[in-house]
Amino acid sequence: MHGLMQDWPLTVDKILDHAATWHHGREVVTRSVEGPIVRTTWGGIHERAKRLSNALLGFGIQPGDRVATLAWNSGRHIEAWYAIMGIGAVCHTLNPRLFADQLCYIINHAQDRIIFADVTFLPFLVENRERLPSVERIILFADADQTAAAGLPGALSSETLIDTHAADAVWGGFDEKTACGLCYTSGTTGNPKGVLYSHRSNFIHTLSTLQSDVMGLSINDTVLAVVPMFHANAWGLTFSCPAVGARLVMPGAKMDGASIHELLETEKVTFSAAVPTVWQMLLAHMRETKGTLTTLKRVVIGGSAVPEAIIRAFHDDYGVEVVHAWGMTETSPLGTLSTPTPEISALPFDDQMPFKLKQGRPPLGMQLKLTDDAGNPQPRDGMAFGRLKVRGPYVAGSYFKGDGGEILDEEGYFDTGDVATIDHTGFMQITDRAKDVIKSGGEWISSIEIENIAAGHPKALLAAVIGVTHPKWDERPLLLVKLKEGETGTAAEFLGFLDGKIAKWWMPDDVVFVDDIPLGATGKIDKKLIRQRFEGYLLPSATARRI
Amino acid sequence: MHGLMQDWPLTVDKILDHAATWHHGREVVTRSVEGPIVRTTWGGIHERAKRLSNALLGFGIQPGDRVATLAWNSGRHIEAWYAIMGIGAVCHTLNPRLFADQLCYIINHAQDRIIFADVTFLPFLVENRERLPSVERIILFADADQTAAAGLPGALSSETLIDTHAADAVWGGFDEKTACGLCYTSGTTGNPKGVLYSHRSNFIHTLSTLQSDVMGLSINDTVLAVVPMFHANAWGLTFSCPAVGARLVMPGAKMDGASIHELLETEKVTFSAAVPTVWQMLLAHMRETKGTLTTLKRVVIGGSAVPEAIIRAFHDDYGVEVVHAWGMTETSPLGTLSTPTPEISALPFDDQMPFKLKQGRPPLGMQLKLTDDAGNPQPRDGMAFGRLKVRGPYVAGSYFKGDGGEILDEEGYFDTGDVATIDHTGFMQITDRAKDVIKSGGEWISSIEIENIAAGHPKALLAAVIGVTHPKWDERPLLLVKLKEGETGTAAEFLGFLDGKIAKWWMPDDVVFVDDIPLGATGKIDKKLIRQRFEGYLLPSATARRI
Repeated sequence: MHGLMQDWPLTVDKILDHAATWHHGREVVTRSVEGPIVRTTWGGIHERAKRLSNALLGFGIQPGDRVATLAWNSGRHIEAWYAIMGIGAVCHTLNPRLFADQLCYIINHAQDRIIFADVTFLPFLVENRERLPSVERIILFADADQTAAAGLPGALSSETLIDTHAADAVWGGFDEKTACGLCYTSGTTGNPKGVLYSHRSNFIHTLSTLQSDVMGLSINDTVLAVVPMFHANAWGLTFSCPAVGARLVMPGAKMDGASIHELLETEKVTFSAAVPTVWQMLLAHMRETKGTLTTLKRVVIGGSAVPEAIIRAFHDDYGVEVVHAWGMTETSPLGTLSTPTPEISALPFDDQMPFKLKQGRPPLGMQLKLTDDAGNPQPRDGMAFGRLKVRGPYVAGSYFKGDGGEILDEEGYFDTGDVATIDHTGFMQITDRAKDVIKSGGEWISSIEIENIAAGHPKALLAAVIGVTHPKWDERPLLLVKLKEGETGTAAEFLGFLDGKIAKWWMPDDVVFVDDIPLGATGKIDKKLIRQRFEGYLLPSATARRI
Repeated sequence: MHGLMQDWPLTVDKILDHAATWHHGREVVTRSVEGPIVRTTWGGIHERAKRLSNALLGFGIQPGDRVATLAWNSGRHIEAWYAIMGIGAVCHTLNPRLFADQLCYIINHAQDRIIFADVTFLPFLVENRERLPSVERIILFADADQTAAAGLPGALSSETLIDTHAADAVWGGFDEKTACGLCYTSGTTGNPKGVLYSHRSNFIHTLSTLQSDVMGLSINDTVLAVVPMFHANAWGLTFSCPAVGARLVMPGAKMDGASIHELLETEKVTFSAAVPTVWQMLLAHMRETKGTLTTLKRVVIGGSAVPEAIIRAFHDDYGVEVVHAWGMTETSPLGTLSTPTPEISALPFDDQMPFKLKQGRPPLGMQLKLTDDAGNPQPRDGMAFGRLKVRGPYVAGSYFKGDGGEILDEEGYFDTGDVATIDHTGFMQITDRAKDVIKSGGEWISSIEIENIAAGHPKALLAAVIGVTHPKWDERPLLLVKLKEGETGTAAEFLGFLDGKIAKWWMPDDVVFVDDIPLGATGKIDKKLIRQRFEGYLLPSATARRI
């Protein structure tokens, strides 16, 4: 027997409708790619998005068609999003930080029919236009004059389209499972794979993140969305801010410390979200300039593990609370947050730190499982490593076009590819990527934990740890160190530095000093390449045993 | 094209699963109907609910079967809820404040197969057992000894059932639209009608209420749920508290000022929700005893309009924030809340008051429409009256068994039966029930507003205003006054009291002093009966015009 409540599909066009109806005059502020600050409102964005929808319909865009955006965070970018999603087309966010070849692969794989783009990305578009046969039109976020001057034949001006279309486009009216957004994972192995969000998944993710213990945004917040819209939907902020009528500030192309600090202060920002690098730049800038943070209360930091120094600086020097979060493109993205429990809040700040350094606990709707390679559940003792698997209404069930095949286990969980622990308070901590974890005698050793400690050695510039084949233990850790300019070091020095900070059996079997530790496109250490370089490397311990 | 996210039905069993996994040890505290405080945890409730589910399965309860509860707020009541809902049966909450005839009607209409009941309600059950043919079993929230002593042949002990069944019942696995709960409206006209909630509607309502600007509950909250579970799902608290791991305190049968104050203080409650009467009793008790509120931060008040005196007393004397809310059984129930916008927060407290006295704004997912009788939208000027209509994923689409027929308008909105205004800031205010509003010369006059002011006259004990037929204006207001013991009054005195407080054309055409103003079962003025009594009443103004 079914309940008798109304049939009200959870489609994201209703989020912007709600904002236009109840938060009409609330501001959306953008540092435009041209430089000046521009201001609009949720009501203004709604009207312009409706006009753009009519333009897309005029171009024959059908439900399910992919329309891409190649743009920084801006009010215009939000307008394009809702214009696309509102009519049932799929908004494909392109990551401009990828190499041109990867971008072309992704655009062709998605068969994007239209690309909305910032003028910033004209060089890529001019150079690669011929390689993108599915793309019928390119719409620049620009006025007619800028577009004419762009040097891209056939390019259209978004402002002209908005001026020449009516705001009467009809949104919604389709099934809530309708595809809504497409975002490719960066793909450290193999080709990038597309995560195809539905209206339902985005809507539920929005409500979930709005809980007090998650993002907890309020109509009283002014939010600086540093995390890009092409990075897993700006962690949902372009949905959650209009949902509650938060004032939204968009940084455009400028994410350096000075630019971010200026926006935080002049726009009286109360909440922000970004990866650690952004905050490192901000904190460095503020130390140099003796800057202050007069309105900021809370920052959510994710994308990679948050260093203790960032948490301390925000807390001690600026009175800002850091919430450490974990998620991925496949989880929409919010998976867990380090929001303290009452027991943890009651501790002195220093004793809270071990929990703040973890990625935290999941909200309702995100199920976590920790298993060994055989699929057996691991204990929640904060010690046992396991593969982290997740299930929920905003977790990917498969990739676009079936790439990657069946990605769920027999219980419907998605394997994140991360290795983690969960402690008795429920705090999860990512300890490694599954492909980087070192399997020694049936136990797992975290390559990341060792290299993070080693990188803290005063002489080290970078450190990397990989597993190297070992006749008895299967694998043993090898530490690679790139020393700072002019420094010299010894293996004993580094092993001594690690001594007492990691378990005895985690101690690397060898230390190699290298001139170069390769980094991938996203700035992370490219361990795949390092493993290739050190394939067949003979550890002293392995040699010893052979003799 | 559909998105490719996981299929994860929104069923409420997952809420308690989540609580048991991540908030296992968080307390649920009950003032038992026997008197003593009893303590359990979300983990404990989960396990006992699973055992009870097995008992229900053993009794042959099938998906869709109705199982009723006749009980005060308690941990045991929550266990029964999830035991019923988890296996796809329908939890039918009975309101013990109804008359026996109404209760029997509702139980028979719902065809309840089992009733869970507090021993408090044995008199009703013993007396009416024979009138409830669909009821196969009655399970008392009691141990074996109490049950044996209850004097109700065949009654079962919930504790015995829990002791004798395993905790391995399988929950969920059904469509999220599956019926989950049933609650009858009090039905001032005609028979009570059943609202049949779905798992989906309850789950989405839960997430919606958890937003910061709605209930905003956190793992750091201790919640006193005074509002009964039979009163529109305790406004969702028995879902939202386990969802976030809030500590929950249940008052059992005692809702007097002293009992509520004791729980607030001894259990260190931070958040509570109840109707105005409960708070009036609490505030009166605290004034008498010079009591304090040391932990309470926020109360949500709804069910009827909140008097200014309550808001002021909480704010001025105890530093507690009052959030005025509106909703109904048909809206799950949260419809709107008076959470201030930044513009209102910036005002001095006295200037905020007009907004605090309104029922407020809707969260995402609740659409409001204000129309005249012809269905035309009314302006949002804070002046124009309109019928309040609502649409959303947790609003009723029809009543159980089709009672009441088609209840949605052509746009899918449910007519709340309330008359309201919406001002330019979006704050909605209920001004009357649609059937009580007075239609004078094509304009609407609020009967409630006039009678509330008149009731404030020092000589008045009660006041009521109804519309009386008028040859020129269709209807004109008639004021009925019941004077305090020993008082005498004149029409001129009361009209003079109203002068300047209401619009000239709202001024009642006559004042009648009566010995009795009839009240209905829920304590509200029975205007239907008054209208019957005054049918054909000739207003002086009508007579004058006839001459």
